[in-house]
Amino acid sequence: MIDLNTLKFDDKGLIPAIIQDDENNEVLMIAYMNDEAVRRTLETRRVTYWSRSRQKYWIKGETSGFTQELQSAYYDCDMDALLLRVIQKGAACHEGYRSCFFRRIDQGDEPEVVMERLVNPY
Amino acid sequence: MIDLNTLKFDDKGLIPAIIQDDENNEVLMIAYMNDEAVRRTLETRRVTYWSRSRQKYWIKGETSGFTQELQSAYYDCDMDALLLRVIQKGAACHEGYRSCFFRRIDQGDEPEVVMERLVNPY
Repeated sequence: MIDLNTLKFDDKGLIPAIIQDDENNEVLMIAYMNDEAVRRTLETRRVTYWSRSRQKYWIKGETSGFTQELQSAYYDCDMDALLLRVIQKGAACHEGYRSCFFRRIDQGDEPEVVMERLVNPY
Repeated sequence: MIDLNTLKFDDKGLIPAIIQDDENNEVLMIAYMNDEAVRRTLETRRVTYWSRSRQKYWIKGETSGFTQELQSAYYDCDMDALLLRVIQKGAACHEGYRSCFFRRIDQGDEPEVVMERLVNPY
């Protein structure tokens, strides 16, 4: 494994991770990892986050089944952001959409939902 | 334009923007915008950032020519991140690579450069 000390975590000890679908290149979500979440993700190849709100680690899809299997990982020029390419099962978004970026905002005064919901989370 | 007050900026007044190539879906970079940078980007369709280090607005490519022309914009379920799909001229990365995510980190102990440099920035 690379030396995780080379990564630049923010003042809360976190680094943003962009999650991209390895099959069709869709951007699925962004989440935040601390160094231990990065280490677990690279070691296990199962994407693991640090939840800021719940203050705990969680393997994505552990309860929903909507797992993210790591295919490749990259850091950026400043070493303060990650790009993780994954095999995504089902919906990445907790609202039941494939991607969290399901609302377009650059046309008109209202956001427009641009994809179908895969599952009803409620 | 949508009501920018619906966006959730962090405690520094910033929101992360993932920049994706609209032609081949490559993730090019991540940068940070304040509300005025978002407004300028959506209005002018030229991607404009707030530089945290220089404390000023900058239109991407203003000096390098490597502009980003907005094609579509999305926010995520939590409204605390943006996805901007752009036509990218030349290199998005200040190190001269097409994408800032030019180093792969999930194989072995050393990062591996996985793309060619387009221009020499030095």
